[in-house]
Amino acid sequence: MEQNELVDKITKEVMSRLNEKMKNQVSTKQDSTVANHGFTAAKLARYIDHTLLKPEAVQSQFDNLCEEAKKYNFFSVCVNSSWVSYVAKKLRGTGVKVCCVIGFPLGEMDSQSKAFEARNAIDNGAHELDMVINIGKLKSKDLKYVEEDIRAIKRACRQNTILKVIIETSLLTEEEKVLACEISKKADADFVKTSTGFTPGGATVADITLMRRVVGPNIGVKASGGIKDFNQAVALINAGANRIGAGSSVTIISGGTAQGPY
Amino acid sequence: MEQNELVDKITKEVMSRLNEKMKNQVSTKQDSTVANHGFTAAKLARYIDHTLLKPEAVQSQFDNLCEEAKKYNFFSVCVNSSWVSYVAKKLRGTGVKVCCVIGFPLGEMDSQSKAFEARNAIDNGAHELDMVINIGKLKSKDLKYVEEDIRAIKRACRQNTILKVIIETSLLTEEEKVLACEISKKADADFVKTSTGFTPGGATVADITLMRRVVGPNIGVKASGGIKDFNQAVALINAGANRIGAGSSVTIISGGTAQGPY
Repeated sequence: MEQNELVDKITKEVMSRLNEKMKNQVSTKQDSTVANHGFTAAKLARYIDHTLLKPEAVQSQFDNLCEEAKKYNFFSVCVNSSWVSYVAKKLRGTGVKVCCVIGFPLGEMDSQSKAFEARNAIDNGAHELDMVINIGKLKSKDLKYVEEDIRAIKRACRQNTILKVIIETSLLTEEEKVLACEISKKADADFVKTSTGFTPGGATVADITLMRRVVGPNIGVKASGGIKDFNQAVALINAGANRIGAGSSVTIISGGTAQGPY
Repeated sequence: MEQNELVDKITKEVMSRLNEKMKNQVSTKQDSTVANHGFTAAKLARYIDHTLLKPEAVQSQFDNLCEEAKKYNFFSVCVNSSWVSYVAKKLRGTGVKVCCVIGFPLGEMDSQSKAFEARNAIDNGAHELDMVINIGKLKSKDLKYVEEDIRAIKRACRQNTILKVIIETSLLTEEEKVLACEISKKADADFVKTSTGFTPGGATVADITLMRRVVGPNIGVKASGGIKDFNQAVALINAGANRIGAGSSVTIISGGTAQGPY
């Protein structure tokens, strides 16, 4: 156990120093050497919901998340609902939006509770909500439930709140992916989104292409889950995504490749 | 894709036939050959929350869950909140309790939303609530938040509602496990519980021993996560657990060994 703690401590120290090193690299590379397919680091940053959802994340990591979002001008930070008021306070007046996940990551919370969590998140400062579709009801062909579930959260939204529906592509058949997109669009969602990042498998060019084809040009498509580098992010945007969810956003815009499951 | 669907279909068929076969085996073995450390299948069944939490589970699997719970007299079925009213209706008058997870599986939902989900689950027929502790706040040393979070759900409970607090041992240090148990006890929880089953690692004899030592004899300890066979379940009970959470409950009481992550 002591050995594990030692390993943990050293790892954290190394990661922290690497992080600093990387920030400096990004600062010099930004808008110059990493241009790719017409994308610069600064342009790509505006697509990114800078995300921290793992349950063991501590306050200092949320401080860091907000600092990075301000520094690189990411579109938003994306967090669980118990962290919304904390990050909203830190980001007030910066232009960085606050995005909150709802019924996350299983989507199997009842609709009323999802709607309550949504209202509460908005009251606490969230501008965007990423809800998980009820996957079990979708697979049970209870499509009325699935639609009404999304509408319940939509009703909780204010006029300017953006509602994204995570369809969790990795658990769906092709037919279910199409259905999930159609229902989300019908229920007035603003975006469909590929993945929670908590199942094996994440955003793919094939899924983004499919989702964009089904929802058409007028609503958003967010690619998320396992996005690790600049080229992958740009490929997903070229396939039809207009938002990227990532935890490794700084590495991504710097042109590096991130490690690990988040 | 068609090949995958075929594999899926055949697998389901085989699993379904095996399941039937196994049920018959259990019926004959019950209370006779699987006696172990003084435990019979029927006695062990009374310790088990028969659990189905994966997001892709469909209605017919919940039907099956309830049928099995009635047939083998499991203590309860344990489900996500969007399935509570469905299973409660199926189990009315059978004596099998309904257990609902709250803020599951990350625990990072805000306290008010957890309390709302709890109240709603009780209104829909839940007798027991398995909430996830706020792991991030615990690790951030915001112990006041962690305690108040549990108290908020406790206040939502009715007089007979049982509240269990999942501390997610696999993500905690030894010190954090002790703290989590102490805070849960202080906040009037009825049980502490090891795991959600959604992180690598689950119930261990060492953790159950530790948790029982910290909470003392007067509150419950539930072992869950990765429990796959009879001997393992009995070992956890002998170490201090007085409830077992498992998805493979029929296999466990039959004396077989379950496969797979749930």
